[in-house]
Amino acid sequence: MGYSEEKMYEEKVFKDPVHRYIHIKDRVIWDLIGTKEFQRLRRIRQLGTTFLVFHGAEHSRLNHSLGVYEIVRRIVDDVFDGRPEWDKEERLLSLCAALLHDLGHGPFSHSFEKVFDLDHEQFTQQIILGDTEIHEVLAKVDPGFPKKVADVIAKTYRNKLVVSLISSQIDADRMDYLQRDAYFTGVSYGHFDMERILRVMRPKEDQVVIKHSGMHAVEDYIMSRYQMYWQVYFHPVTRSAEVILTKILHRAKHLSEKSYTFKLPPIHFYSLFEGKISLDDYLKLDESVMLYYFQLWQEESDPILSDLCTRFVNRKLFKYVEFHPSNEQMSKLLELNKLFHKAGIDPEYYLVVDSSSDLPYDFYRPGEEEERLPIHLMKNNGEIRELSRESEIVDSISGKRRTDHKLYFPADILENDTGRRKIKKQIRQLLDLD
Amino acid sequence: MGYSEEKMYEEKVFKDPVHRYIHIKDRVIWDLIGTKEFQRLRRIRQLGTTFLVFHGAEHSRLNHSLGVYEIVRRIVDDVFDGRPEWDKEERLLSLCAALLHDLGHGPFSHSFEKVFDLDHEQFTQQIILGDTEIHEVLAKVDPGFPKKVADVIAKTYRNKLVVSLISSQIDADRMDYLQRDAYFTGVSYGHFDMERILRVMRPKEDQVVIKHSGMHAVEDYIMSRYQMYWQVYFHPVTRSAEVILTKILHRAKHLSEKSYTFKLPPIHFYSLFEGKISLDDYLKLDESVMLYYFQLWQEESDPILSDLCTRFVNRKLFKYVEFHPSNEQMSKLLELNKLFHKAGIDPEYYLVVDSSSDLPYDFYRPGEEEERLPIHLMKNNGEIRELSRESEIVDSISGKRRTDHKLYFPADILENDTGRRKIKKQIRQLLDLD
Amino acid sequence: MGYSEEKMYEEKVFKDPVHRYIHIKDRVIWDLIGTKEFQRLRRIRQLGTTFLVFHGAEHSRLNHSLGVYEIVRRIVDDVFDGRPEWDKEERLLSLCAALLHDLGHGPFSHSFEKVFDLDHEQFTQQIILGDTEIHEVLAKVDPGFPKKVADVIAKTYRNKLVVSLISSQIDADRMDYLQRDAYFTGVSYGHFDMERILRVMRPKEDQVVIKHSGMHAVEDYIMSRYQMYWQVYFHPVTRSAEVILTKILHRAKHLSEKSYTFKLPPIHFYSLFEGKISLDDYLKLDESVMLYYFQLWQEESDPILSDLCTRFVNRKLFKYVEFHPSNEQMSKLLELNKLFHKAGIDPEYYLVVDSSSDLPYDFYRPGEEEERLPIHLMKNNGEIRELSRESEIVDSISGKRRTDHKLYFPADILENDTGRRKIKKQIRQLLDLD
Amino acid sequence: MGYSEEKMYEEKVFKDPVHRYIHIKDRVIWDLIGTKEFQRLRRIRQLGTTFLVFHGAEHSRLNHSLGVYEIVRRIVDDVFDGRPEWDKEERLLSLCAALLHDLGHGPFSHSFEKVFDLDHEQFTQQIILGDTEIHEVLAKVDPGFPKKVADVIAKTYRNKLVVSLISSQIDADRMDYLQRDAYFTGVSYGHFDMERILRVMRPKEDQVVIKHSGMHAVEDYIMSRYQMYWQVYFHPVTRSAEVILTKILHRAKHLSEKSYTFKLPPIHFYSLFEGKISLDDYLKLDESVMLYYFQLWQEESDPILSDLCTRFVNRKLFKYVEFHPSNEQMSKLLELNKLFHKAGIDPEYYLVVDSSSDLPYDFYRPGEEEERLPIHLMKNNGEIRELSRESEIVDSISGKRRTDHKLYFPADILENDTGRRKIKKQIRQLLDLD
Repeated sequence: MGYSEEKMYEEKVFKDPVHRYIHIKDRVIWDLIGTKEFQRLRRIRQLGTTFLVFHGAEHSRLNHSLGVYEIVRRIVDDVFDGRPEWDKEERLLSLCAALLHDLGHGPFSHSFEKVFDLDHEQFTQQIILGDTEIHEVLAKVDPGFPKKVADVIAKTYRNKLVVSLISSQIDADRMDYLQRDAYFTGVSYGHFDMERILRVMRPKEDQVVIKHSGMHAVEDYIMSRYQMYWQVYFHPVTRSAEVILTKILHRAKHLSEKSYTFKLPPIHFYSLFEGKISLDDYLKLDESVMLYYFQLWQEESDPILSDLCTRFVNRKLFKYVEFHPSNEQMSKLLELNKLFHKAGIDPEYYLVVDSSSDLPYDFYRPGEEEERLPIHLMKNNGEIRELSRESEIVDSISGKRRTDHKLYFPADILENDTGRRKIKKQIRQLLDLD
Repeated sequence: MGYSEEKMYEEKVFKDPVHRYIHIKDRVIWDLIGTKEFQRLRRIRQLGTTFLVFHGAEHSRLNHSLGVYEIVRRIVDDVFDGRPEWDKEERLLSLCAALLHDLGHGPFSHSFEKVFDLDHEQFTQQIILGDTEIHEVLAKVDPGFPKKVADVIAKTYRNKLVVSLISSQIDADRMDYLQRDAYFTGVSYGHFDMERILRVMRPKEDQVVIKHSGMHAVEDYIMSRYQMYWQVYFHPVTRSAEVILTKILHRAKHLSEKSYTFKLPPIHFYSLFEGKISLDDYLKLDESVMLYYFQLWQEESDPILSDLCTRFVNRKLFKYVEFHPSNEQMSKLLELNKLFHKAGIDPEYYLVVDSSSDLPYDFYRPGEEEERLPIHLMKNNGEIRELSRESEIVDSISGKRRTDHKLYFPADILENDTGRRKIKKQIRQLLDLD
Repeated sequence: MGYSEEKMYEEKVFKDPVHRYIHIKDRVIWDLIGTKEFQRLRRIRQLGTTFLVFHGAEHSRLNHSLGVYEIVRRIVDDVFDGRPEWDKEERLLSLCAALLHDLGHGPFSHSFEKVFDLDHEQFTQQIILGDTEIHEVLAKVDPGFPKKVADVIAKTYRNKLVVSLISSQIDADRMDYLQRDAYFTGVSYGHFDMERILRVMRPKEDQVVIKHSGMHAVEDYIMSRYQMYWQVYFHPVTRSAEVILTKILHRAKHLSEKSYTFKLPPIHFYSLFEGKISLDDYLKLDESVMLYYFQLWQEESDPILSDLCTRFVNRKLFKYVEFHPSNEQMSKLLELNKLFHKAGIDPEYYLVVDSSSDLPYDFYRPGEEEERLPIHLMKNNGEIRELSRESEIVDSISGKRRTDHKLYFPADILENDTGRRKIKKQIRQLLDLD
Repeated sequence: MGYSEEKMYEEKVFKDPVHRYIHIKDRVIWDLIGTKEFQRLRRIRQLGTTFLVFHGAEHSRLNHSLGVYEIVRRIVDDVFDGRPEWDKEERLLSLCAALLHDLGHGPFSHSFEKVFDLDHEQFTQQIILGDTEIHEVLAKVDPGFPKKVADVIAKTYRNKLVVSLISSQIDADRMDYLQRDAYFTGVSYGHFDMERILRVMRPKEDQVVIKHSGMHAVEDYIMSRYQMYWQVYFHPVTRSAEVILTKILHRAKHLSEKSYTFKLPPIHFYSLFEGKISLDDYLKLDESVMLYYFQLWQEESDPILSDLCTRFVNRKLFKYVEFHPSNEQMSKLLELNKLFHKAGIDPEYYLVVDSSSDLPYDFYRPGEEEERLPIHLMKNNGEIRELSRESEIVDSISGKRRTDHKLYFPADILENDTGRRKIKKQIRQLLDLD
């Protein structure tokens, strides 16, 4: 029997708060979990800075990765197994892709990628295809296997049914994170009847479809997703922490470019600042390392870096006001910019517009970039219909992008009455603070 | 109106997965939460290394501290308020002590304190009484207030009723951690009807008592606690991680004492290794910093430090066998010790006996050290009875200490067939591995 | 101290699966619960025939009535108390109206009221104002008190704020039944964050409003309600049971009008059949009594009554097909009608169109009958806005009535091959059964 | 393919609040559920009179029967399937026995059986073996099949492994009712990790054993059971309702024996009163019918029957005091008996001692009657050990019978100050009421 079919002597289980148990029967999966690249995901939080607002949200990406694996395992083992449309040969591939789909995430991904112009998906590819423990395990299955796994994650694999398990508008990825993030934050949104959805999933030629009788469970899932976006993921205070974090990284990069001398050399960041980070260096960066530096940098002599780090580490966040990008508001922003300069507060770092935007569900729009597959329902007679044509609720929100803009700033400094009172008063008035 | 009575303009709430919401009405509590010493608790996990076994257990001590505060708040505001035995003047003191009771915990406390001979309770005292943001807030209430808070936590405060809220066999501390740890690990133990227990708590002269009608809820709590100890806290694999962690710290200290030259100077550990750590240095040590060093040390030239750190970071833990400290087993251990030396594996670091021991409940035994108060029930006629005299279930386990010993070792090295096969085979046979 | 302010010596609590505990402090509430008219609600199921589809849905209206009371108690005691817009004198009135709002419900209300042209709201009024134990308790508070309670339930009470607690689009009635029915059926819909909604409710002059910050929780509630309607309340199989029940009552009434002789005289139904039921007779009718007769009637000589009762008692329900009231379908229905007659199956009882229709949310439309109040949000500046103007999700479904029609018939009889094969075959073809 | 192997065209599912879904794949099971004898279980509550104390406990025996079926289905399909110790031929038999094990229960079984000297197990046998729809379905499998099912339920079937699935100290019956009764009452006891227990169950020659690693989950189950007994099943107020119910049945039987003329002839009870009830008559008796009569009897001229029925229907229960059957207390009881006679209150019906007794767990005691099998653990080496020899907690409660006695009486009548004041005062003093 080959490695790809090797089963554990005794099934392993991990206790999981969301799915109750994660079941591991395949030796390959067990070995992947044991690699250092996978274990590294313990040191990266699933929700970045959200723990500063929802104190329970301290769960790691390893947590989520196991969850996605388990959902795909249940689909292929309990629902697809034995159906003619499902090719059993794709089973292990599907499980591996599910487990590894987030492997390349960096620390506080969102800000990190933006500032350093990186893409976690490229690192996922590199980890799977490069000289890593992950690669070693996958290549034992078959020399071509790592490439297949990478292709599924990159959505370029020829069997789109396998791709859709982890990349559609109702894939295992989304189903896990909605439930998991709801569980750890403790919010009452994020619940839907996944067991029912799994039971009505059916394999089709190029995608997973949902039996029509499961439509209401899918509607509930779409609504959960909508609520989670606006209640948790785009929570204005989380975004404040995100703004500060982004500005810390900007400032550190800027100082490095200006040849500023750090008290302790930030060795982990050198190649990053220079824009030529290697896979090895990338893998050493995790949230422990970042937090280590943020703590050190509180004592840097650059007042901006030091202040921003102190804010992040001790949760002294920026306040915010609503900001609608109208002409009137844009002039106000310019005016504020000037006043901040006058008050000696660098608006580059202390006056920040942040925008969030989400599309709760969308049917397929040819030519539009990067949208995930729409959801298709299968009627009893075999006919396939796109969800928003069947569900009035979904139709009513389909394609409606919602956007929200906020202006962030350090209210504490503005209240500070040690000097420049007059300018600060003007600022406060413009911001409607008084 | 004084600072001690100042209320928030609008009550603040944090979403909490265990208690649903944490309610904050007092300005003092809000200000304490905002201090950097309290925020530091975000960087220390409630359950140390347990997350390596129960992947959900990534929650921080800040999490738990808010929970203990909330339980005490519910007791004093919803149950005690208005009862003649309860002195309303003690309200704020009780809340502060609850919130701050774990303030002095270091990273991975258990191992950390053992290796460096430290006591987190002393650091809690120092943080409350020293030159800290915490002290500043507390002293604003009243110059003598910090001392009072410290006394409650040290159990020396004159009003034992206040002490018992956070230090008895059924205090807010235990009630929070059992439920919280159960929630984040996902185990099905750890549940009991806290709402009922709170409703039947009554203030008495020197302790909180429980109305007799709540006895069954208390029994359930005792059983939950028993299960959590043996299912989660003393889980043999968690203890393996703990053993490795302890040995890392031992090794680093040992190397430092031997004037070993670290590749990167472990500046955060200097004063610790020298046994004269200051409060400031202590507060800089958190689990991010520890993990940062453990990652660095993987590349140290000392093979033991490097190996142990690699094990910890990448979760390559020790295996274990049962070990009963009989004469026979002690000779076997000595024999193994010799064989390990022969095989070139230092038994000091690689052959470790670990013991866990718990007393599920105990009545009061005068003269015995450090036991928390027993639980007292109050009958309808006012009579007070110790729990184990009323409950057959509790009586049957009362005072019965249960102890468990295990022997930990790196099975992978022993299986390794690159050399010293014969000795390793002997070792494996003694350990019943083959 | 008067009766209206009399408190229980010790607060009474009932364990409730939905709200954990129902708390009773007022002697008046305790006494109302003890009346025989209130206890009668134990013998009427909250969801009528739904238990034939969701086997857990066996909970009674007493269950729900206690829940509505508890929600209103939490609103007035924990949220409204102390606010200037809230008149404390209305507290007991609100609690009594909440507890008693469903008092007049008959057995299997929906069908029962339709067939006998009754209105449970009129019976609620009669029970409160008539010669009953309920009246006796309420009149002890004050001779004018029963009338006030009746007025609140009839929505004619002058203080509309009190009325809106139990009659609006987000009142205590709906919040209880959605959660309770979800709990007992076991469906995963029906959950929303009631604790949050209660916390942001504010008393205004003529209604309860919701703080704007609670908008998302309200959206979630609206979606829960939508799902519960289509997943549970309008479940097509429940409607099948309802159809049969209605036809049983029709048939029994018809037989009685035709002077049919029942084997055992249906004494409980005499006055009902004659259209002049007294309050006393009405109160004796509950679901035990109905089920008693349905069982007896299985052995009646009238084949239709006997067959329908056998179907209901033993859950041999009608099947259904979709039915859209187009011209084409209407002709098909006429055709079926004829064929049923030919086949000797009375279409009056065995070929039934049933329609369900729901409006998930609506803003106020002056002049339209009987709609509950819309939901109003209060912004931080005090401005009041109708929900659908603030929430895109709610706006997108607001005012959109959804209707569903189905055609019910006894598929088993049509499959029966003992005679009239040809006609039955025609019927089956028209119904697309083969 | 024979009937025994016929599968549903599409798996049927029922939504179940406890097990989420009940899955039905076998045509035989589907047909059994559709019989009138099984549907009759909808009209018998699982917990008899408990709903008068825990208002949520209105669930029927049909509910529980489906649950036991589902647990056995999971054991045989998900855990036992494929193991050499498990004979697949026993699958359908196990499922049928699980589904039907409670089929013979009468209304309010406990009191009913006691008063009329009946045994529901005998009726279960009769229903399975007699001329019933159940028998018809079972006999279609094989003429000998009904007898086999009856034997499993009677514990006389030769394959004790099958018997132990529904009759041991940790069988599917107990696992379902503990969880179900906890769910519907809403108490926080009754939870244990059934999923884990199922996963570690193993078939052995003559019983189901539990892998040693599941010991803690089993301990938790034993403790849950203990708590449910004393918190729910033996709740003193439930027992009060039970006492009244028993006395109603006694009185009605007594009156019938004395040729009392009922206003409306109690036709359903004739054969019962005469001690020669047929299966057909028995099956017509359900809780709707009982409640119908209890309501009628409120208006009987016999004051005792009328009073007791009024108490039961309207929940005007007896009060209680503790009663320990010592010599002293027995003399007090005799004294009370005399005083009740003097006061004109028949002590036969109004002064009742009720005793409850439970054995939380017991190892096997040869020769003792009717105990269920003890629980056996299987170590990794295959050795089988009885639970109490491995678990200290279980050992400490094993074999310890706990008994509780209470004395019930109508406190309202004794407080009544219309006459016989002096005697009633004496009674109240003896009962310590004043």
